Amino acid sequence: MNILLLAGDGIGPEIMTEAEKLLAALALPVTLDRALVGGAAYEATGHPLPPETLAKARAADAILFGAVGDPRFDHVERHLRPEQAILGLRSELGLFANLRPAKLFPGLEDASALRPEVAAAIDLLIVRELNGDVYFGEKGTRTTANGEREGYDIMAYSESEVRRIAHVAFRAAQGRAKRLCSVDKANVLETSQLWRDVVIEVAADYPDVALSHMYVDNAAMQLVRNPGQFDVVVTGNLFGDILSDQASMCVGSIGLLASASLSEGRLGLYEPIHGSAPDIAGKGIANPLAMILSLAMLLRHSGDDEASAARIEAAVAKVLADGARGADLGGTMGTAALGDAVVAALNG
Amino acid sequence: MNILLLAGDGIGPEIMTEAEKLLAALALPVTLDRALVGGAAYEATGHPLPPETLAKARAADAILFGAVGDPRFDHVERHLRPEQAILGLRSELGLFANLRPAKLFPGLEDASALRPEVAAAIDLLIVRELNGDVYFGEKGTRTTANGEREGYDIMAYSESEVRRIAHVAFRAAQGRAKRLCSVDKANVLETSQLWRDVVIEVAADYPDVALSHMYVDNAAMQLVRNPGQFDVVVTGNLFGDILSDQASMCVGSIGLLASASLSEGRLGLYEPIHGSAPDIAGKGIANPLAMILSLAMLLRHSGDDEASAARIEAAVAKVLADGARGADLGGTMGTAALGDAVVAALNG
Ligand SMILES: CC(C)[C@H](C(=O)O)[C@@H](O)C(=O)O
Ligand SMILES: CC(C)[C@H](C(=O)O)[C@@H](O)C(=O)O
Repeated sequence: MNILLLAGDGIGPEIMTEAEKLLAALALPVTLDRALVGGAAYEATGHPLPPETLAKARAADAILFGAVGDPRFDHVERHLRPEQAILGLRSELGLFANLRPAKLFPGLEDASALRPEVAAAIDLLIVRELNGDVYFGEKGTRTTANGEREGYDIMAYSESEVRRIAHVAFRAAQGRAKRLCSVDKANVLETSQLWRDVVIEVAADYPDVALSHMYVDNAAMQLVRNPGQFDVVVTGNLFGDILSDQASMCVGSIGLLASASLSEGRLGLYEPIHGSAPDIAGKGIANPLAMILSLAMLLRHSGDDEASAARIEAAVAKVLADGARGADLGGTMGTAALGDAVVAALNG
Repeated sequence: MNILLLAGDGIGPEIMTEAEKLLAALALPVTLDRALVGGAAYEATGHPLPPETLAKARAADAILFGAVGDPRFDHVERHLRPEQAILGLRSELGLFANLRPAKLFPGLEDASALRPEVAAAIDLLIVRELNGDVYFGEKGTRTTANGEREGYDIMAYSESEVRRIAHVAFRAAQGRAKRLCSVDKANVLETSQLWRDVVIEVAADYPDVALSHMYVDNAAMQLVRNPGQFDVVVTGNLFGDILSDQASMCVGSIGLLASASLSEGRLGLYEPIHGSAPDIAGKGIANPLAMILSLAMLLRHSGDDEASAARIEAAVAKVLADGARGADLGGTMGTAALGDAVVAALNG
């Protein structure tokens, strides 16, 4: 398997180093390559997703991605900002299905802002569509009839876009507790109405899965009130962005959540759901666990190596159960120490 | 003062009765009128916002609004669904500024899904724009080039729309802790970029207010992690819908949160942020406190009667501090009993 490592900006390189330690410790038959992405690529080449990086990404079997984003480039034209690199990879590579699992690790009951008994019940998977919605519709700034500036973005979903993500979500639900909640805003948005209609059509193929629908405002509320009620949640790009970040805090730290962005084929991109955290970059205190758990998802989904994925996840769980805590969880362990602890825990 | 009472659907009429008890007990010099709205109006007249209701609303000084929404009408054409009544009132009456305060009532520390110390720190005001965004842009279903159905909605904000809500938010912040956080998704949306640019322009008029910006995904996370960090939050229609419902659960129950929807003039509409709750309608168990607190906001903002508003709010706080709990808070007090308790607490 060919893995492309895209470390990116901010804490990206530091946490990537820890994932590489795991890969080395597992001694898997993989080939590693590296390329520039995000602000780092913009600085070196003038583009956040240079053609060479995109070509390497297309040729890879899987991409392990750190993070992009650097406030130094906030005033650069939008299409050259670091974030465009991840948006570009998602759309160019057809990475339409974003899987974001959230589950409380034993021992972290007191780390969540939620009451321990509420947090302990969390075990959900957010399936977020990643190639459509208001992210990729036509957008710009125009002048209105009365001479004012107006910003606009077109939100849209077509039948086939909804259908393919719905199939991913229903199949994921079949492998879990067989409950799927589709989140939309069908009382206001036509995009959501089509979304809901198509999800209902697809449901006919999955009679064993219980489908429900929830408006996004209610879903944001229920994720605080009683997140344990959810099994699989399927939603569009924008609502998925919001709800998955929210869910991350319910489990104690955004530094713990991994994600997989899958295409129709084997190729997938794996990244922590947190960002580049420029404020703590270079200090050696970033939590590498979300990055390490992203590697586990890579081995499972693109590498078909469930055994190694499960070994990594068990090692992370053990390290946390043993009390290892980085700064994000009020502890003192640094990035490298956490990575070393996971390596040490790999064999039991 | 002329107050129009629009009880609406589901639990609307039951909770409205309790607000009327308060009005009677306060013996204020107000004239009350009533009209049909929502599913109830659709059933009687074929339209959720009949011309007669709209005319009465235009003529009123203030509108006290219950709730609309009834699943029996989910399959009616969108423009005739109950929700269109509240959207129509907001746009026809130019109710562009939605104020949604969230604060933990003493005694409810254990009602929130958040840990008590996290919940206790909540005292924020969400200022939500209510006349623009993806709610009111062109929308529909079209057929794509390859013959598929596609749902679309245009998200947009013009300069003047952002400017007027920004002024409301900055002035609100001046009357509070002088911190304003503007929430957008400027790393992806042009609408958000314009939003951010204009908010920064308006900030020049309010040098005493500390302005910050936050992406909506991060805001949803921070509202769980540490909601006490926020003073005033200003955001667009869609993000405001999501974040304010989320905040409601942080304070223990959606049955406690009131809102004001203000125009440029005196006219305002006041409503609980919860919906019509058809599942518990007619059972006499709905929490009327959000409705009663909405009346307090009405007296403050449209009636210029701070004294009566404060009296109602103190009475609600006393009732809760004394341990009164409806079903939403795990108690047994019904709708009427809670309303009676607030009336009894008015004078002490
Ligand atoms: C960086 C940003 C463009 C991105 C998104 O909004 O999708 C991020 O928030 C995420 O969730 O991966
Ligand atoms: C009923 C619905 C259209 C409405 C909205 O989305 O604005 C409601 O959720 C609200 O927040 O007042």
